[in-house]
Amino acid sequence: MTAQSTALLTDQYEYTMLAAALKDGTAQRRCTFEVFARKLPYGRRYGIVAGTARALDAIARFRFTDDDLRSLSRFLDKETLRWLEEFRFRGDVTGYREGEMYFPGSPVLSVTGTFAECVILETVVLSILNHDTAIASTATRMVTAADGRGLMEMGSRRTHESAAVASARAAYLAGFTATSNLEAARQYGVPSAGTSAHAFTLLHTGADGPDEAAAFRSQIAALGTATTLLVDTYDITEGVRTAVDVAGPDLGAVRIDSGDLGVLARQVRQQLDDLGASRTKIVVSGDLDEYSIAALRSEPVDSYGVGTSLVTGSGAPTAGMVYKLTEVDGRPVAKRSSSKETRGGSKRAVRFARDTGTVVEEVICLAAAEPPPVPMSLTAREVTVSLLRGGEPDAEAPTLEEGRQLVATGLKSLPWEGLVLSHGEPAIPTRFATE
Amino acid sequence: MTAQSTALLTDQYEYTMLAAALKDGTAQRRCTFEVFARKLPYGRRYGIVAGTARALDAIARFRFTDDDLRSLSRFLDKETLRWLEEFRFRGDVTGYREGEMYFPGSPVLSVTGTFAECVILETVVLSILNHDTAIASTATRMVTAADGRGLMEMGSRRTHESAAVASARAAYLAGFTATSNLEAARQYGVPSAGTSAHAFTLLHTGADGPDEAAAFRSQIAALGTATTLLVDTYDITEGVRTAVDVAGPDLGAVRIDSGDLGVLARQVRQQLDDLGASRTKIVVSGDLDEYSIAALRSEPVDSYGVGTSLVTGSGAPTAGMVYKLTEVDGRPVAKRSSSKETRGGSKRAVRFARDTGTVVEEVICLAAAEPPPVPMSLTAREVTVSLLRGGEPDAEAPTLEEGRQLVATGLKSLPWEGLVLSHGEPAIPTRFATE
Repeated sequence: MTAQSTALLTDQYEYTMLAAALKDGTAQRRCTFEVFARKLPYGRRYGIVAGTARALDAIARFRFTDDDLRSLSRFLDKETLRWLEEFRFRGDVTGYREGEMYFPGSPVLSVTGTFAECVILETVVLSILNHDTAIASTATRMVTAADGRGLMEMGSRRTHESAAVASARAAYLAGFTATSNLEAARQYGVPSAGTSAHAFTLLHTGADGPDEAAAFRSQIAALGTATTLLVDTYDITEGVRTAVDVAGPDLGAVRIDSGDLGVLARQVRQQLDDLGASRTKIVVSGDLDEYSIAALRSEPVDSYGVGTSLVTGSGAPTAGMVYKLTEVDGRPVAKRSSSKETRGGSKRAVRFARDTGTVVEEVICLAAAEPPPVPMSLTAREVTVSLLRGGEPDAEAPTLEEGRQLVATGLKSLPWEGLVLSHGEPAIPTRFATE
Repeated sequence: MTAQSTALLTDQYEYTMLAAALKDGTAQRRCTFEVFARKLPYGRRYGIVAGTARALDAIARFRFTDDDLRSLSRFLDKETLRWLEEFRFRGDVTGYREGEMYFPGSPVLSVTGTFAECVILETVVLSILNHDTAIASTATRMVTAADGRGLMEMGSRRTHESAAVASARAAYLAGFTATSNLEAARQYGVPSAGTSAHAFTLLHTGADGPDEAAAFRSQIAALGTATTLLVDTYDITEGVRTAVDVAGPDLGAVRIDSGDLGVLARQVRQQLDDLGASRTKIVVSGDLDEYSIAALRSEPVDSYGVGTSLVTGSGAPTAGMVYKLTEVDGRPVAKRSSSKETRGGSKRAVRFARDTGTVVEEVICLAAAEPPPVPMSLTAREVTVSLLRGGEPDAEAPTLEEGRQLVATGLKSLPWEGLVLSHGEPAIPTRFATE
């Protein structure tokens, strides 16, 4: 899988620009392109950078096979094709580590090299960062809402089959406990889980009608009493009784996937306790989002299964990051189109925090400039790190687990308004010290 | 690419159910699973089925490699693994052709075979249909809004890198003219296009500052005067003047990517005409959705470039289809969970239309039942066709172009309320003749 070329996961105009620049001699100018978001989507108060590792991997696999070149020969001249044949990225990439928080204007990734080698990476880099960041940024809101309870990602069926794998990874990065997606388990080591669907209960229908007990017996025979039984196929009260009947009081959990989950959780908890199954957990699922997860906090729910709203970004399915040319041969460049201005120059970011660890401001300065002065009583942390140097990985790439740790640390460092679920302003301001 | 196994693009519970069913002997029961949507998303009036060809391809590639089996051995017993080793789908699939309209309850796809072979296909089939259908159903609204003008898909950067390819395909199915995505061009033959970005203009910055004319000259040298010049990097009026200056009055088109597109299109049209470039077209892009496309109908816009709103489904990023067990050994089965009821039995659909071709009703009946009586003055069309028989393709699969034709015909057959962009009820009712 990782051996595949990523060179055609891109937009045609990148190659037509390349062809024109090779012809007029500007292709070799040293450029910096910057990935940033003009705003956080949908009134969010912070974002979580995700997809960095996948983007760096896509850059490494940005090589041209014969079939790629054949396809591009439809519209590219021989010289450009010859240039692509030899291509591999040899530039530098700096940026935020995966799992880092970001805010409007944060220079999330900076790609420096010749115009030719940087311009053609635009689409695939943005696709990955925009998707994974949207999912991770949504997932952390659910993690916060769940307040320490388990969260299982189970949205694969509601999104593109490959986006599903990346979503499972991004959700885990953000603090989810597990995924249903098996490819994410294989490829990224995300813990996977799963027991049964309504179909399994319905399958156990005989000439005499439904036989929920047979389904439960079969599941327990295969998976043991620690499993989770799905109790809402027919009647929940009946389902819970049958479940404890068949499994005994050591049944691992029951899952409720429909109805008013708060009311049902209370009823089921009472019923389980009355049946002596006081250690049996309650799992709920079914159209949950961060708001309904938060609303269920006061109910006897032990863990949540989340699908659609996670993989669709709960109203913000893309992070809206852009990839803009900011520097040519050491000179800052910027476009002036209305409402789409860019700020010129290669940048880096520093985050100021109080002694308590609470962040107060992000300062964005030119990469080549002196570090900004640190106000009294604050500490400064360099957010930008080197990721690729001369096309090769710089320093040890953080693991998914390390990124997950960074997310957890980041959430703890936010001022309290930052964790509020309602729409609002970014949790901390970004200040440009670049002019 | 097409050789890859799809067997792990799935949820763990499908394999744990399989393991339990193999153990208790129910795995061989003959089952039908049905893909349908309980409702259309977001007040839409119709949906367009898309992804069918990709789903059938994914079923054909649902085979287990050694690496797949090794990964599954984490939680599956030897017998189940042995069963998977030999697996290939040998059942039957019926359903709607790709490009067909659908409504709430339409039996979009029915998968019949043993429980074992059908249950494990759930996630990958749903992922594909839910994603592609969401995009195609959004794209047709844009096609209708554009009222015959060209529509270019350019949203790759705003969605997962593989979802981008499927989105480009779905948009073309729905009637878009072209895509920026090169992998969609290679893999599916979607016409691709693209010229330049703001970066190319900014690249042409020298010691004396910006040099828009140099950028335009370079692009024309490489792509000819029929190209599209992006005129809004600095000042649009200046950009248009420079464009015609450099290219002459035969310039193909100018693109405006920011600002009030309606006002700017009018100004630019006037300016182009005054400069003698009356055949130069105007392309607009920048955060367009079906509503803004419709709003620009009265302006001198020749074609639209659409990105984010298309690939995110313009508010409806997933079609919300489900895969439900409806029949076991010839007996209808149905779950009774509140608000998630299912209707038992294998089904097919017939659509009634007036002589004029305008559809009036979709009738869903049991697959084995007599066809429903056709009311006087109406004609009936069988919507359900056979797609796979014994695991093999049944009849010639429709091409992407044929699906595109089916979409166009379908849109023409809708009652006029069906094409209204505002939220509302489905354009025609679905009636169940199954009870």
